[in-house]
Amino acid sequence: MMPFESAPQTVFPLFGQGRHLLSVSQFDLPTMRRLFDLADTVTPIARRQAVCTVLDGAMLGSLFFEPSTRTRLSFESAFLRLGGEVTTTTGFTFSSMAKGESIHDTARVVSGYSDVLVVRHPEAGSVAQFAAASTVPVVNAGDGAGEHPSQALLDVYTLEKELGRRGRPVDGCHIAILGDLKYGRTVHSLLKLMALHEDIVFTLFSPPSLELPPEIDAYVRQRGHRVLVQPSAVAAVAGADAVYATRVQRERLTGEVTQAAGGDLLNRAILAEADNLDAILMHPLPRDSRPDSFDLSPDVDDLPGLAIFDQTDNGLIVRMAIFLTVLGVDAEAVRLTTKQRPWKASLQP
Amino acid sequence: MMPFESAPQTVFPLFGQGRHLLSVSQFDLPTMRRLFDLADTVTPIARRQAVCTVLDGAMLGSLFFEPSTRTRLSFESAFLRLGGEVTTTTGFTFSSMAKGESIHDTARVVSGYSDVLVVRHPEAGSVAQFAAASTVPVVNAGDGAGEHPSQALLDVYTLEKELGRRGRPVDGCHIAILGDLKYGRTVHSLLKLMALHEDIVFTLFSPPSLELPPEIDAYVRQRGHRVLVQPSAVAAVAGADAVYATRVQRERLTGEVTQAAGGDLLNRAILAEADNLDAILMHPLPRDSRPDSFDLSPDVDDLPGLAIFDQTDNGLIVRMAIFLTVLGVDAEAVRLTTKQRPWKASLQP
Amino acid sequence: MMPFESAPQTVFPLFGQGRHLLSVSQFDLPTMRRLFDLADTVTPIARRQAVCTVLDGAMLGSLFFEPSTRTRLSFESAFLRLGGEVTTTTGFTFSSMAKGESIHDTARVVSGYSDVLVVRHPEAGSVAQFAAASTVPVVNAGDGAGEHPSQALLDVYTLEKELGRRGRPVDGCHIAILGDLKYGRTVHSLLKLMALHEDIVFTLFSPPSLELPPEIDAYVRQRGHRVLVQPSAVAAVAGADAVYATRVQRERLTGEVTQAAGGDLLNRAILAEADNLDAILMHPLPRDSRPDSFDLSPDVDDLPGLAIFDQTDNGLIVRMAIFLTVLGVDAEAVRLTTKQRPWKASLQP
Repeated sequence: MMPFESAPQTVFPLFGQGRHLLSVSQFDLPTMRRLFDLADTVTPIARRQAVCTVLDGAMLGSLFFEPSTRTRLSFESAFLRLGGEVTTTTGFTFSSMAKGESIHDTARVVSGYSDVLVVRHPEAGSVAQFAAASTVPVVNAGDGAGEHPSQALLDVYTLEKELGRRGRPVDGCHIAILGDLKYGRTVHSLLKLMALHEDIVFTLFSPPSLELPPEIDAYVRQRGHRVLVQPSAVAAVAGADAVYATRVQRERLTGEVTQAAGGDLLNRAILAEADNLDAILMHPLPRDSRPDSFDLSPDVDDLPGLAIFDQTDNGLIVRMAIFLTVLGVDAEAVRLTTKQRPWKASLQP
Repeated sequence: MMPFESAPQTVFPLFGQGRHLLSVSQFDLPTMRRLFDLADTVTPIARRQAVCTVLDGAMLGSLFFEPSTRTRLSFESAFLRLGGEVTTTTGFTFSSMAKGESIHDTARVVSGYSDVLVVRHPEAGSVAQFAAASTVPVVNAGDGAGEHPSQALLDVYTLEKELGRRGRPVDGCHIAILGDLKYGRTVHSLLKLMALHEDIVFTLFSPPSLELPPEIDAYVRQRGHRVLVQPSAVAAVAGADAVYATRVQRERLTGEVTQAAGGDLLNRAILAEADNLDAILMHPLPRDSRPDSFDLSPDVDDLPGLAIFDQTDNGLIVRMAIFLTVLGVDAEAVRLTTKQRPWKASLQP
Repeated sequence: MMPFESAPQTVFPLFGQGRHLLSVSQFDLPTMRRLFDLADTVTPIARRQAVCTVLDGAMLGSLFFEPSTRTRLSFESAFLRLGGEVTTTTGFTFSSMAKGESIHDTARVVSGYSDVLVVRHPEAGSVAQFAAASTVPVVNAGDGAGEHPSQALLDVYTLEKELGRRGRPVDGCHIAILGDLKYGRTVHSLLKLMALHEDIVFTLFSPPSLELPPEIDAYVRQRGHRVLVQPSAVAAVAGADAVYATRVQRERLTGEVTQAAGGDLLNRAILAEADNLDAILMHPLPRDSRPDSFDLSPDVDDLPGLAIFDQTDNGLIVRMAIFLTVLGVDAEAVRLTTKQRPWKASLQP
């Protein structure tokens, strides 16, 4: 696994129609705002209140060179809900590539079968390499220690929605971030996107040796935000509008850390001690719900600020907006192809 | 594998719109009748005489935690034939669940991507557990030694159709059931659904130690039916309107049994000896067609009562009706969204 | 692996509506011409200039008993682009078949779920066996050393298009074929289809012991064509309108061969030496792009005649035409169900 500092520093163009989506660096504030506005437009379709056929005839090639069931399902559902069609390739055996086929040939061939590709690959930089030979736009669904831009976008979108429900703007808010801040790709991307806003306070808590890389810290400060490293989860959480917790791989932990707080990274007791039981609670999932797993405890699941499933639900919405942007479809075209449905989607109690 | 008596005895509500389908216990006679009427309505669509778009925009999440290709294809085809879309997950690696994710989190997340879920899992009770956290209706496609309700429903539907073609009602009919009656989940569910009718005679034949569990026997008798245990396949088959044969796992058999009848559970010779070559012949499939496999012999395949492929064809129809019921679509809505097709479906000889 | 001469010599009817597609022997010139005319008709749909719904409600069952990701994606995309729906089964575990289920039962059951099946299987003759029990048309997507008819058809289609762009007819052209001519299923099928035309000159070069089987050679000569075996790639390529190179499995090569031409079967130096840098260059892909792999070198990729990706792009088009033919859809029905699309398919530079 490659730490952040050694990731390739390619410059990608701003995200938009006919563009690959490879990195969060492709967003400035207006670009992200346009994406989120489109996400708002398609929310009723994602929520099954209406049916849309705007992508009728469009084909998504879903290529997962490593398994990631929930990310795959989220992307595929997003495309299908807009009326498109999907072909799926999972657990790519690399049979062709094992026989010496170049990534160029593979990308050129399969891009001839689709209108957009979603690609996940275990190696940092490989998705960009794939995109370079593709004849159609490629969306990066995670390339190892590299990037996973749609995850960061859905995190920021969820944070905006949850703050908005409390009547708060994102500018000037206070976010606590807990967990593995060194290797956590998700956290780095989130920080970079959040840094597009104004005057954010970030309070950080990580186990020893898993601190935020200095260049990310510097990037965020340089944009005018405050970054406060705290000695405990309680200290980081105190006063935060939202708490973002990420899983720490067990083998990276020392004994003393896991004994703290009953073996949890974040739980109800910590929130209570920080006098912040109402905070917005986020996590990129999956979380390890076993006791002593040093993750987000399920004992927070009935707290009012729990937003972890809003994140996955919003992931569908943000990915719909990503596809619409790439394929040059605007809100008006969506409206013209949206209609009522004869089936009913509610679950009876 | 868990024998019937220790299966969880949860009480589920009657099957209908917005309900999970977890157990055959969710059916009374009117509920099953409504389902079968809907199945009749969609038969021309299943038979490719017309195209239906009533589920346009609806999403099925097909989650197979253990492989079962034909069951999966049947469910997915059923949904697609009604105009819906499908995402498939097979051979679920449980990558997330292996990392300690709870079944609650998995179910909550993936249910956000679909309008209905079909779930198969090797452990009894696990699908009901999954359903408890789902935000959309869940259809049980088999949970180990637990239930596989759509199989039992298609069996009863086929039996009704085949009896009907001979001008016979189900009430008062005579069904022979052969094979593993102890561990055969299919047989237990079939008996429970058939017991909703009146005055059925069941004649049973099973190898030693694979007899019907006493509580199922008691349940059927208590409903006013006759259950006659027979010492041989010939005796069980004699006079039966229909014969339902199920596979016996070889390791559960003793030597003497397999030597009987040329190593078959049921074959042409047995039917001839019982003077019943015209009986309706059913089997849940797959059957083991190798010699001496103690299963239904392929030498019956040209007999007029062979209905084993009618069962699989009807499976598609019954599953279409299951989805329509869950999503609150009635026959009228189906009719309004059904049209002619420009393509031709026949195979030239 | 079975050499050509021992393959089963079944006679199949001419390809057309409601027919299986099992072998290139199902084509005479008018049949192939009709297929290619239909391919021309659907080219704008394949190229994403328009959207077609002619196969609305039709179901393709895609059954890959061995993995072949690109062939599968090509067939599935072809069906989806025509408005149909697809169910996919890959890496078939044969769980049922391992339990003794006959190929007859498997084929009969799964054909009940679809309107067309595409089947790939590692054993020669197995797809025809499968087709014999199917209730719907079956398209052979490769059966081991047997046939892979859609590959040969897309090769001939591409050759016609590329010759046509140079104002040349196929009749009277000169094709060089290089590589494994003994075991290469692709080459045999290509030769048989090309032999339907008039006065072709074939120049052949193969490593020792991988020569064209005599019965294929005889078949082609008997049809009035010339077959010239050459001692080197340069000699074979000289004067050819098109060069078709196929991969040679390394273990079949001797040392001297691979040392020739810098370890390539065909490269820019060979073409330059033969004074034929403008030749049409074809390959069934995948190619091994590693140095010394004795395959088509990537150093030809910027030559004007490179047609290897036209082959894969055309594969989509030819497979669309195959499905339309099988399902009895003509060009007029396609036209009536083709429309504009609101999304944009271009990749921005």
